[in-house]
Amino acid sequence: MSQPKLRIIPLGGLGEIGRNMMVVECDDDIIVIDCGVMFPKDEMLGVDLVIPDITYLLERQERVRGIIITHGHEDHTGALPYVLPRLNVPVYCSLLTHGLISVKLKEHRQLAGARLNIVQPGDTVGFGKLSVEFFHVCHSIPDALGLIIHTPLGTVVHTGDFKMDYTPVDGLPTDFARLASLRGEGVLLLFSDSTYAEVPGYTASEQEVAYTLERTMAEAQGRVIIATFASLISRMQLVLEAAARQGRRVFFVGRSMRDNVEMALKLGYLKAPSGLIGQLQELPSLAPEKVVIMTTGSQGEPTSALVRMAIREHPQVDIVPGDTVILSATPIPGNEHLVNRTLDNLFRLGTRVLYDKIAPVHVHGHGSQEELKMVIHLVNPRYFVPVHGEYRHLSLHAAIAQSLGMPPSNTFVLEDGDVLEMTGEGSRVTGRVPSGNVYVDGLSVGGVGPVVLRDRQALARDGMVVVVLALDQRTGQLVGDPDVASMGFVEMAESRVLVEETRKLVEGLVAHHQGMRAGDQLRSELKDALSRLYYEKTRRRPIILPFTLEV
Amino acid sequence: MSQPKLRIIPLGGLGEIGRNMMVVECDDDIIVIDCGVMFPKDEMLGVDLVIPDITYLLERQERVRGIIITHGHEDHTGALPYVLPRLNVPVYCSLLTHGLISVKLKEHRQLAGARLNIVQPGDTVGFGKLSVEFFHVCHSIPDALGLIIHTPLGTVVHTGDFKMDYTPVDGLPTDFARLASLRGEGVLLLFSDSTYAEVPGYTASEQEVAYTLERTMAEAQGRVIIATFASLISRMQLVLEAAARQGRRVFFVGRSMRDNVEMALKLGYLKAPSGLIGQLQELPSLAPEKVVIMTTGSQGEPTSALVRMAIREHPQVDIVPGDTVILSATPIPGNEHLVNRTLDNLFRLGTRVLYDKIAPVHVHGHGSQEELKMVIHLVNPRYFVPVHGEYRHLSLHAAIAQSLGMPPSNTFVLEDGDVLEMTGEGSRVTGRVPSGNVYVDGLSVGGVGPVVLRDRQALARDGMVVVVLALDQRTGQLVGDPDVASMGFVEMAESRVLVEETRKLVEGLVAHHQGMRAGDQLRSELKDALSRLYYEKTRRRPIILPFTLEV
Repeated sequence: MSQPKLRIIPLGGLGEIGRNMMVVECDDDIIVIDCGVMFPKDEMLGVDLVIPDITYLLERQERVRGIIITHGHEDHTGALPYVLPRLNVPVYCSLLTHGLISVKLKEHRQLAGARLNIVQPGDTVGFGKLSVEFFHVCHSIPDALGLIIHTPLGTVVHTGDFKMDYTPVDGLPTDFARLASLRGEGVLLLFSDSTYAEVPGYTASEQEVAYTLERTMAEAQGRVIIATFASLISRMQLVLEAAARQGRRVFFVGRSMRDNVEMALKLGYLKAPSGLIGQLQELPSLAPEKVVIMTTGSQGEPTSALVRMAIREHPQVDIVPGDTVILSATPIPGNEHLVNRTLDNLFRLGTRVLYDKIAPVHVHGHGSQEELKMVIHLVNPRYFVPVHGEYRHLSLHAAIAQSLGMPPSNTFVLEDGDVLEMTGEGSRVTGRVPSGNVYVDGLSVGGVGPVVLRDRQALARDGMVVVVLALDQRTGQLVGDPDVASMGFVEMAESRVLVEETRKLVEGLVAHHQGMRAGDQLRSELKDALSRLYYEKTRRRPIILPFTLEV
Repeated sequence: MSQPKLRIIPLGGLGEIGRNMMVVECDDDIIVIDCGVMFPKDEMLGVDLVIPDITYLLERQERVRGIIITHGHEDHTGALPYVLPRLNVPVYCSLLTHGLISVKLKEHRQLAGARLNIVQPGDTVGFGKLSVEFFHVCHSIPDALGLIIHTPLGTVVHTGDFKMDYTPVDGLPTDFARLASLRGEGVLLLFSDSTYAEVPGYTASEQEVAYTLERTMAEAQGRVIIATFASLISRMQLVLEAAARQGRRVFFVGRSMRDNVEMALKLGYLKAPSGLIGQLQELPSLAPEKVVIMTTGSQGEPTSALVRMAIREHPQVDIVPGDTVILSATPIPGNEHLVNRTLDNLFRLGTRVLYDKIAPVHVHGHGSQEELKMVIHLVNPRYFVPVHGEYRHLSLHAAIAQSLGMPPSNTFVLEDGDVLEMTGEGSRVTGRVPSGNVYVDGLSVGGVGPVVLRDRQALARDGMVVVVLALDQRTGQLVGDPDVASMGFVEMAESRVLVEETRKLVEGLVAHHQGMRAGDQLRSELKDALSRLYYEKTRRRPIILPFTLEV
């Protein structure tokens, strides 16, 4: 009988943050860890979402035993509505994650066919030669899981996203005891969260935010308006408790936050004495010092509640001097300018504004360098694969492992698509599988590719000019005036001159090539000549689309 | 005789950072402080540069006595090549600033007509009823100036960009003694730099960077490659001194850095013993531990030297494991993703990389909160106008002034275009003048406006479709097949189906409106029908350009 072989294949989240997906494969059994989206970067013009390429899984569909979701954040769950219709395998996740996924699948009309299974810390689920035990980790969303994967070659530990916090809001710190108990057995491989591998020291406890928020509620003469992530249930619980003590009632604004609050109350992840949470229509009748408003919009999302409040366009909440607005979040990389614009608009309203740069109103959900060291020390794995991070985060995390004495040859900085093969003899990267960004744009999944994006970038840079001309099919003479239109190139006033010059050039060119047919050669000559004209006059290079008709 | 009146009009840099320009006007005499550019934000698609709107100055050209440039950074000098041809007034600046401006004006063939005057700290220049005394401030470029403006109504102080640093590389700290001496006379108004009003404490001295850089040179077995701003002369001097002590030679890479080094050596702002600075062709013959390379590209600019090194496309410098790369800069807001991509690529080369998040390799050139307090305390002005900052920076700076006891009614948070009028009776905002962003795009200054940008944004989002059809002018029947082309909308494969559906729809529509003329109504109906078709099929809204010809 042949020796068992383990294959580790990241399909997302390694080398580019977001759209997390890790494949662990033992002979004929495949499990998938997480199934997330990434929000499009600046250069991905017009793209709605980015999901991982699952070609590798589709090609061996019958061997995929299940998808395990570590927690309910979009970068771990958001691709499910696009993946499950093509790869309908069972999904395993915790109760809260199940709640969040169900809401999302329902929106996409994908809930009916989905096979969702709820697991809890301590449970073990078998997937052929692989079996997975779940343990609790503390993160910025409750009910997050780490994985202990038992394989014929040894134990594999996956931390999920985690931080150390001995005083989290839900009272449930990361289960370091279970991790430490593995040290004796010997762990083959550790996957650990690299998101904050750049940050020295320890990540602060949620209690530090609690102190600032409650003190602000105690001191503020007016309303306190707190914006945060719609999924940051622990922050909401903390606000509910502080508000209750400070004699304020809490109002939730923004659809996604209200949906999550309702679900979390129902499942018991949020606890509030009756009457503490108010309905928006009661707001006008309450004294300002009795009010806390929690809202979406902490990332400056253009249609979010906070952004509409900041430009005085929210139907229910009108921010006035005397209010205190707290942005209890940090901008996700890429969102800085939207967040800054919102902050500026809030300051313009004359309100007091607190945000991460000037007050301790947010803590991260990921472990910093000393926490990463602790996990490596506790687990003491033979091999180490840093996960969840840009390339620099993974590299720095590998260097941290090496600083604890791990041989460089046993740390693998993998990128999406790499195949790490482990056997009884050793471990090495043996090849690559298809991986990368699949763009969701409107109804299309994967229909927008590099060509469309390159065209959008070109159109965005210098705009375009369309020229339409009709030629007499017998004489090759122009019939009527050429039609010229431009967009994104020059303003109307300048444009009249340009239209004239374009017409003149077209007429000259047609006259010069007497009798030339209305075909590719004419169009290519028109393109070249117009390109030269526009560059000379404007130093810009619009896209030029010539149409030639024979009539 | 009427009482003198002072008008303060920011035309740039207040409420939106960059393109700094402040107007100080006393009756018939106008002076302009700084003339800078801003780099375009993400939504300003295809724009090269942004300069201030100088309509106000052009309308009273004969009263503008001069432009004073506080220091040589682009956000204070960069609009001169565009402004001077339209507003040819004398320019006043320090020797180094003069050198930098001359290089820039020469590039634009504007040097010949420019009237540039060199001033130094202690000099006073008269501008009618206004006279300006210059004093030294310490900033991240040498030879920076603050201004003491004597007016009939009292003294106005402008800090320029400044920081406190008692041990700067050039040995010249900000002249706080001169500022303190003003306290006795009574200062009417203070303008002070708000860029770092969010940051608590004190900005570190350049010496902190010196320590890290020299230690790195001492420890590194291979080459040390340092990327920084091309204008950061003090960082270069510091590297030269450390390299000399550590027995390394220094090589400069990147055109703008080499130009600035040459100029700064000539003017005496950089000092290097002969032989310390090497020529690139000597590089291959030197042992790696004898080499320091200073390069442009610290902002991840796509065509810069460092970025080309990071993707192994630089003709002279091939980064290898064993090299240490230091990014001695912080990303300018908006550049984060370019910088991060460059960092990731450097890590991929297996080189050691140091950058601001993980090592003290950069300090800012602007004062933090305690330094801002010190200036307000020393100058003790009657009125305060925070300058150089987004709205939140200005607001926070005004709050700092108020925390020192200044009445809120005496602090003015102005935005570009606001007019602050000061008389013997008091001060108030009396109105607004034209202000805002003027876009430079190719050869056009101001030719690209909001319409063009909106079109570019729409094209960038969903692309476009052009439909060309010919109608028989007698019968109104289609002649030939409609011609369809799209860009940035769907990939080719999907596109064939769409072209077919478009043709079918066009044919149906023309048949339905038998005999309709090829005019606006037909085009508008085509647009609506195609828009519905594409939205239904793709949930996207491309720009639709229908052309109808009668033949």
